[in-house]
Amino acid sequence: MNPKSWLCLKRTVRFGDCDPAGVIHFYQLFRWCHEAWEESLELYGLSSLDLFPGGENFRDDALIALPIIHCEANFRLPIKTGDNLEVILKPKRIDLTKFQVIFEFKINEQKVAIALLKHISINSQNRKRCQLPEGIDKWLESSSITLGVNPAN
Amino acid sequence: MNPKSWLCLKRTVRFGDCDPAGVIHFYQLFRWCHEAWEESLELYGLSSLDLFPGGENFRDDALIALPIIHCEANFRLPIKTGDNLEVILKPKRIDLTKFQVIFEFKINEQKVAIALLKHISINSQNRKRCQLPEGIDKWLESSSITLGVNPAN
Amino acid sequence: MNPKSWLCLKRTVRFGDCDPAGVIHFYQLFRWCHEAWEESLELYGLSSLDLFPGGENFRDDALIALPIIHCEANFRLPIKTGDNLEVILKPKRIDLTKFQVIFEFKINEQKVAIALLKHISINSQNRKRCQLPEGIDKWLESSSITLGVNPAN
Amino acid sequence: MNPKSWLCLKRTVRFGDCDPAGVIHFYQLFRWCHEAWEESLELYGLSSLDLFPGGENFRDDALIALPIIHCEANFRLPIKTGDNLEVILKPKRIDLTKFQVIFEFKINEQKVAIALLKHISINSQNRKRCQLPEGIDKWLESSSITLGVNPAN
Repeated sequence: MNPKSWLCLKRTVRFGDCDPAGVIHFYQLFRWCHEAWEESLELYGLSSLDLFPGGENFRDDALIALPIIHCEANFRLPIKTGDNLEVILKPKRIDLTKFQVIFEFKINEQKVAIALLKHISINSQNRKRCQLPEGIDKWLESSSITLGVNPAN
Repeated sequence: MNPKSWLCLKRTVRFGDCDPAGVIHFYQLFRWCHEAWEESLELYGLSSLDLFPGGENFRDDALIALPIIHCEANFRLPIKTGDNLEVILKPKRIDLTKFQVIFEFKINEQKVAIALLKHISINSQNRKRCQLPEGIDKWLESSSITLGVNPAN
Repeated sequence: MNPKSWLCLKRTVRFGDCDPAGVIHFYQLFRWCHEAWEESLELYGLSSLDLFPGGENFRDDALIALPIIHCEANFRLPIKTGDNLEVILKPKRIDLTKFQVIFEFKINEQKVAIALLKHISINSQNRKRCQLPEGIDKWLESSSITLGVNPAN
Repeated sequence: MNPKSWLCLKRTVRFGDCDPAGVIHFYQLFRWCHEAWEESLELYGLSSLDLFPGGENFRDDALIALPIIHCEANFRLPIKTGDNLEVILKPKRIDLTKFQVIFEFKINEQKVAIALLKHISINSQNRKRCQLPEGIDKWLESSSITLGVNPAN
């Protein structure tokens, strides 16, 4: 499977993503990050039904949640309605209970924004840390092989 | 050109679209409608850059805006994270300055929600009504031929 | 208790609520409706912790959900960043399992938009209809006495 | 004027801010930051009408925009529907064209999340850097006196 297929995505900027200054309202970038992450997992073969609370197959007795503990973004160039973005994901396991994904946003090969999301794995009942779900672990493994030893930078 | 190509779209429900009840937070449906409309115009060959304020080619001297004056939705069945939706658009010209689009949302052929957006065409400087932009007019024309005399029902 | 205190609320329009046309992006009005409804229940003395899934006191064995089955809105005049809105709620019981709330939005006494949300009461486990929660019932009772026999129009 | 009045705000978490995991969907925190910033400016005496594109008094010949070039957040404890947040703003001028605001979110005196927004001042026509608007400058001045030399930490 070509790694590009689950780590290089497309997105078109919509009118409602932008504010009266005519560019994206900043936090929409984070929405795109999370949605790109979900899309990447799906393309890799994981079902969001299995991974996310509220999905149909999500079992109440096996509740792992993956809350975001840190996120950040840099905005370099204006992003506007109708822009066709390339979204490149660079996932990286930090330890057995933690991972991060860097998201690069490009228009015509030019980097316009970059963001980072850091997740931990917890048991959603007692909110204690636990090992990453097997599917996420495999996705991280496959993605880092693809991108080399240190995909984050 | 096969009309299906610009009037039948796909969308996957994302985690952030849903609320603690485990189903979509109701007004996200309207976001999907507007985004589906923008996607439909693009697929038909119109550029959102030309149509929407804030787009790069949008001219300050030719400001037509298409504000929504009415919208409504019926929710029939729960819509959840990971659901693959079919979104069917049924556009209809109402008069020279007004049109509506009905959006049907289906999961596995079953209708789960339906929405309607009604737009008018105004000069955004003086906010007086004006004729629909030529591109929108053609899109309405092509779409209604496709769907028959009374696409709305 | 003065009924105005829980049925007449205030809201200031924020920059991120608006789109590149310089006015609110239409579906934000529905967010304001839902938030005004939550605020009204709180001011009346009900805790959203008891009423909404995900609240701390929400019991898994007593899961009543109040999904929206229909909503609609009319937009009359432009609403912009910094506008100070008055939000007037007109709740009405439809039957033992169903109610609606009309929301009027005013700027300087002038009606700029109006919306309606219709909810049903269901057991969120089996999704069958059930009687409205006692708190909601009292809120409806108190609100309709306040507003007269037919608050909806 | 008591500085607390424009730098310590309140916010109640709403149902639609939360996702199926029962806690806030992460990027909503950034929406709260921006809205708290707008509220702070208003309470200080500045009109968002003067400061934000799309406001009624905003002059096309004096277009200063204040885009966010960097933002980040740390999430420490779960934030849920109905939670009453205290939002403390710590603004700081970085140089003549740049400032940042740190936002601390507390529930019952306990820090649950912290965020930072960094803005630059640009001429929105040519997108070149320019001095901060006078109003923002005064707000920064008054806020930093209030909080001491190094409000950021």
